[in-house]
Amino acid sequence: MINGERQTKAAIRWAMVGGGKGSQIGYIHRSAAERDRYFQLVAGAFDLDAARGRAFGVELGLDPDRCYADYKAIFAAESARPDGIRAVSIATPNNTHYEISKAALEAGIHVICEKPLTFTTAEALDLQRIAEERNLLVGVTYGYSGYQMIEEAARLVADGTLGEIRLVNLQFAHGFHNEAVEDANPAIRWRVDPKFAGPSYVLGDLATHPLYLAEVICPELKIRRLMCARQSFIASRAPLEDNAVTLMEYEGGAFGTLWTSAVNAGAMHSQKVRIVGSKASIEWWDEHPNQLSLEIQGEPPRLLDRGMGYLHPETSGDDRISGGHPEGLFEAWANLYYRFALVIEALDEGAPDRVADLRYPGIEAGIEGVRWVENCVRSADQGGVWVDYS
Amino acid sequence: MINGERQTKAAIRWAMVGGGKGSQIGYIHRSAAERDRYFQLVAGAFDLDAARGRAFGVELGLDPDRCYADYKAIFAAESARPDGIRAVSIATPNNTHYEISKAALEAGIHVICEKPLTFTTAEALDLQRIAEERNLLVGVTYGYSGYQMIEEAARLVADGTLGEIRLVNLQFAHGFHNEAVEDANPAIRWRVDPKFAGPSYVLGDLATHPLYLAEVICPELKIRRLMCARQSFIASRAPLEDNAVTLMEYEGGAFGTLWTSAVNAGAMHSQKVRIVGSKASIEWWDEHPNQLSLEIQGEPPRLLDRGMGYLHPETSGDDRISGGHPEGLFEAWANLYYRFALVIEALDEGAPDRVADLRYPGIEAGIEGVRWVENCVRSADQGGVWVDYS
Amino acid sequence: MINGERQTKAAIRWAMVGGGKGSQIGYIHRSAAERDRYFQLVAGAFDLDAARGRAFGVELGLDPDRCYADYKAIFAAESARPDGIRAVSIATPNNTHYEISKAALEAGIHVICEKPLTFTTAEALDLQRIAEERNLLVGVTYGYSGYQMIEEAARLVADGTLGEIRLVNLQFAHGFHNEAVEDANPAIRWRVDPKFAGPSYVLGDLATHPLYLAEVICPELKIRRLMCARQSFIASRAPLEDNAVTLMEYEGGAFGTLWTSAVNAGAMHSQKVRIVGSKASIEWWDEHPNQLSLEIQGEPPRLLDRGMGYLHPETSGDDRISGGHPEGLFEAWANLYYRFALVIEALDEGAPDRVADLRYPGIEAGIEGVRWVENCVRSADQGGVWVDYS
Amino acid sequence: MINGERQTKAAIRWAMVGGGKGSQIGYIHRSAAERDRYFQLVAGAFDLDAARGRAFGVELGLDPDRCYADYKAIFAAESARPDGIRAVSIATPNNTHYEISKAALEAGIHVICEKPLTFTTAEALDLQRIAEERNLLVGVTYGYSGYQMIEEAARLVADGTLGEIRLVNLQFAHGFHNEAVEDANPAIRWRVDPKFAGPSYVLGDLATHPLYLAEVICPELKIRRLMCARQSFIASRAPLEDNAVTLMEYEGGAFGTLWTSAVNAGAMHSQKVRIVGSKASIEWWDEHPNQLSLEIQGEPPRLLDRGMGYLHPETSGDDRISGGHPEGLFEAWANLYYRFALVIEALDEGAPDRVADLRYPGIEAGIEGVRWVENCVRSADQGGVWVDYS
Repeated sequence: MINGERQTKAAIRWAMVGGGKGSQIGYIHRSAAERDRYFQLVAGAFDLDAARGRAFGVELGLDPDRCYADYKAIFAAESARPDGIRAVSIATPNNTHYEISKAALEAGIHVICEKPLTFTTAEALDLQRIAEERNLLVGVTYGYSGYQMIEEAARLVADGTLGEIRLVNLQFAHGFHNEAVEDANPAIRWRVDPKFAGPSYVLGDLATHPLYLAEVICPELKIRRLMCARQSFIASRAPLEDNAVTLMEYEGGAFGTLWTSAVNAGAMHSQKVRIVGSKASIEWWDEHPNQLSLEIQGEPPRLLDRGMGYLHPETSGDDRISGGHPEGLFEAWANLYYRFALVIEALDEGAPDRVADLRYPGIEAGIEGVRWVENCVRSADQGGVWVDYS
Repeated sequence: MINGERQTKAAIRWAMVGGGKGSQIGYIHRSAAERDRYFQLVAGAFDLDAARGRAFGVELGLDPDRCYADYKAIFAAESARPDGIRAVSIATPNNTHYEISKAALEAGIHVICEKPLTFTTAEALDLQRIAEERNLLVGVTYGYSGYQMIEEAARLVADGTLGEIRLVNLQFAHGFHNEAVEDANPAIRWRVDPKFAGPSYVLGDLATHPLYLAEVICPELKIRRLMCARQSFIASRAPLEDNAVTLMEYEGGAFGTLWTSAVNAGAMHSQKVRIVGSKASIEWWDEHPNQLSLEIQGEPPRLLDRGMGYLHPETSGDDRISGGHPEGLFEAWANLYYRFALVIEALDEGAPDRVADLRYPGIEAGIEGVRWVENCVRSADQGGVWVDYS
Repeated sequence: MINGERQTKAAIRWAMVGGGKGSQIGYIHRSAAERDRYFQLVAGAFDLDAARGRAFGVELGLDPDRCYADYKAIFAAESARPDGIRAVSIATPNNTHYEISKAALEAGIHVICEKPLTFTTAEALDLQRIAEERNLLVGVTYGYSGYQMIEEAARLVADGTLGEIRLVNLQFAHGFHNEAVEDANPAIRWRVDPKFAGPSYVLGDLATHPLYLAEVICPELKIRRLMCARQSFIASRAPLEDNAVTLMEYEGGAFGTLWTSAVNAGAMHSQKVRIVGSKASIEWWDEHPNQLSLEIQGEPPRLLDRGMGYLHPETSGDDRISGGHPEGLFEAWANLYYRFALVIEALDEGAPDRVADLRYPGIEAGIEGVRWVENCVRSADQGGVWVDYS
Repeated sequence: MINGERQTKAAIRWAMVGGGKGSQIGYIHRSAAERDRYFQLVAGAFDLDAARGRAFGVELGLDPDRCYADYKAIFAAESARPDGIRAVSIATPNNTHYEISKAALEAGIHVICEKPLTFTTAEALDLQRIAEERNLLVGVTYGYSGYQMIEEAARLVADGTLGEIRLVNLQFAHGFHNEAVEDANPAIRWRVDPKFAGPSYVLGDLATHPLYLAEVICPELKIRRLMCARQSFIASRAPLEDNAVTLMEYEGGAFGTLWTSAVNAGAMHSQKVRIVGSKASIEWWDEHPNQLSLEIQGEPPRLLDRGMGYLHPETSGDDRISGGHPEGLFEAWANLYYRFALVIEALDEGAPDRVADLRYPGIEAGIEGVRWVENCVRSADQGGVWVDYS
């Protein structure tokens, strides 16, 4: 139980690009970063409309001088200040992630970025190169991975409770876009426009979430080949898909499926991860994230609850309240930001080994998400053929 | 509510081939057939061991003279009696379904057969030809289709509640054979031996069940092409699979997935059918068959219960007890046998039109199951490529 | 797994009084009694309208001569026949249970009766006296007690898994009579008329079911005193209640609550039994009777499923199908009738010891139900005071 | 959707008494108060050990001069500063709530206090008198009432969806103290010691939570009389109870039950509120607070989800993230603190009418909780008799 007492040495000076007035994702970033004083918001370039962005920053209590017109201005000015930002979070449309992240890194600023990190693997690898040269973090906000029960899932796989992993069944399939809701809603419209969204809609926007969870839970699994079928049930979304199924063969014989959709009418999120081993299975559902189902063959299924003494000790390291009380998405994100803060501290102090065993979605996770979407699109665009994973 | 009062004109004289001492499936057939006096068991060839079969028949109250050594004997003798059997149910290993069914039909006896009806489509078509020539029923015991909530699902699709059908997500994935349990259990062993089981294990044994449910619920959907990946996680089962995933493109653009498994560790049946339309989805789970989830986009999900006045009137035609009380598998099968009895009566009276609108798993369902498995195997054996459905 | 093979020596010749055309409960009795040939229906007095009763009997395949006008006629004629009935089931309105049961016993016929067995404890004790003198069964159809998971619950208590029993929380609270539905439905009307229903509505009609389940699961618990508050939310039902709460203090310190209702709007049955021990709790819900929740303090909750190898062996003795497949109410009743048949056989053969350990709802259960209602009404009619249980 | 943008005019200067190092409840208060800058922590008297309290305050970033030794010191010093605190939250053991709250009010400081507000109704009324004289808030942290679905429940009752309210079924029954865990844990020990805990354990500590939820949802209901039975299953806890059942008769004929327990072995919280009306019922469970069940008699049950457009608009006013994503306890508390901030602003600006319609747990809720426990104890100590509510 952390009771808000777990702290980094000092709140890290931090800014946001994007995430301005009316942005839900901006609020989530700020709530998570400032939780328990891991980060302190001191600057921002919140909006394409500079005046509106400045007003918003002032509303948040910022010095108006540190509310900038755009990412170029903020990185130039802040990197020149002795008390300038050490880290920036990027919550802009997908098509700008690469250039803004690159500019931040080149200005010596740690980056936390929304996924997808870039449009192409080549771009992602480019960011990796710069980050490594400069000892900087590139964190990717796969927020669900901050839930404690994901840690428990990983521990159950690692300790052999499941036996050999055979099946990975993933889904993230909501129904909110079963009609062409984007026609009336600009906040959705860019997601189905390749210029802003990149080569995919639900594959990149939704599917990479459970994909990353599977990577966390089963770190040993490597995709050998995959095939993907994608559909645009709302025809105007083509070539971007609003539904897709991907099949994956892993090295060593495990098999995976992933269903992602924005047209699963009537469903909320239905983001689910089921891992089937030779001895047991686990299943997790993001709408009720404080629980994890554990089904050992030949025994009655168990429903594990966050905060309980029977969990692996590492699972409870992030608990903010005792079991029975529900934690929610904000805590999951805060757990992620805490780890980003630890990494930034370690890197800035020249002690990267300190976080060598820390599990967080860094640049590799960002690259992998982009690569996976690329492979899916490559398969789908050939009619759903198997492609070697590359 | 039927209160056992719904009757065919007279109990149909009926026999079983297979389903002897210790056979669970034999008991289910008898319970369903004799429920409410639809059929009356008057003869049998229950066992490969003729003496044991006769003893079992006597235990069931049969005339010892009508307990036969094998299917040839029973069909020869009974077809010669004025009070001979009018129908036979076949509950023997898969490899004998074709020859026994054919012999029964050629003896002028109606057939109710376990699935898969045959090993090949050609054989199934052969049975169809004979049955049509002789005005005989070939019923296939897709027992789950007898549940009332499957009828409700079909009605919700038919009346447009779901809108246009987009996705068909099917699964039947248990965990009972996560290890090589067949090594110690002959009752399972034949299921993984191609000689007795045919070209597939879980595809034929499990997957055809939800496949048929989807046919019942969405009768308009026709598969255009499919691809299938199958695995043998217990290596000794190869070439037969203990896990498989099939993707299906339907005429008109709908898309389907089917997951079937015997190695889904810790799961009971987890046979689930989810149909996603442009306006709403429905979902049904065979472990709790008295419920059906209805999720209309933009409205809170509803959980429909068997026996309630808000259902379609046709759904409740088979109710034996009022809502709240659970009916189970035996009632589902009894509903099926009731329909078989109606068809037999109509055919024998030369009035097939009387049952023209009756929904039951007849020869077409039997053929379709075999055809689908053939297509899956054809795809899987080429490495999981798309094959045109034929 | 019984596969229908578990049999009594010969089907017991059996009749029904009541349960005629259109009666759901009559159908349940017949389905359960004739399952697997425990009993054979050979006579009946099904209806107040003798002609209609006879027609119904003939429809069921009975000899018209054995379809009688009333209970007096049937007992007189059948007890005089060498092949007369050995047992009768009584499914008539409550007010007739005592006189018909008494007449049957005096004619030397075993009795299976709907609950409440009588209106008063004195009457119930009178039946007990006669039955004991003549070595006859009085079985009471507490049908839910036939579910296998009730046996498992009893075994978990008996083997100490729960520790010392502290709390017994019972409910049976449906919502079907939230309005004065009896005004339009004679089948419900008699239940709220004291002349036919006796001194209570939901206490006798619903509450005695979970009460008996608690007796089965926790046979050691004896009520020391209780208090009951009852309400008539539909005023025209007074003095009979449509909602009631009873609190019970047991000898030894355990505490119980029972909520029963017919006005729990929107609920199906919600018959639930929760037993809390010093170490663990169990919970069972009659709408999903194949499952039983087991919650051991400090461990994750488990959901036990019928048919599984991890259950107590005695639990699975009644299984008709393997786990995963749902059994329903008809199987629960059939299990009860099977035990009644065993008792009748043993008594008729002068070997009552053979069934000394058999658990079934006999005359003691019948008496206890009546006594409990009497105590509740006595408390409620004094304004909800504690009364010593007597 | 508030996106953190809903703000009070300026963060209210705020302190805590109690809630120091290692205190979970202290962390919850701070997280909720500082969320979205409603309050700003500027002072504290966190600990009985003054040095430890100061160190903790410094760790939280406070000026060491504003970390005080005790409540007397903090109120004296802060009320003398021009920039002194305007509000204080009290998170100390129950026995000190009255004296600390009184001292704060007398120093002109708004009070937010843990429940139970006091040990006696007289004390609570005393606080009310002082608060009213000085135009100060006394807020009581019934945190669950901040969940949005509680608002939805209240709206469904208010708009007549449920019809006339008939039944109020409440429970808060965990199993964590099924053994004498207090022997080894001082943090629990004071809760079962009347000197620190007051006249009750679970009645005051747990039961008042769902009781207040019922008041919020059904504000029209007034208790006419009640009866309470309480038990100490761990004998050393007597006279304080670890299990209790209260029955309530409301003016107008509605009936209520409340079960509270710390010995409900294996259960997490199981805090549930079920309200039964003449037409429909609603049910809410604090372990999955983003859902609310709505069961209209004659229709299938619906499961309502937070964040959805079909809810009452007022329900979604507090949403921080869109539907599907789970909010948790921290958001519920933050919603409460936001309302406290609004009330403080309004009172300080002499505009109490501005918050006249705002629903929050103020002094009346505090008084009512204490009064209800007093009545329960009065009944229980007489052996569980009905007492007129006073």
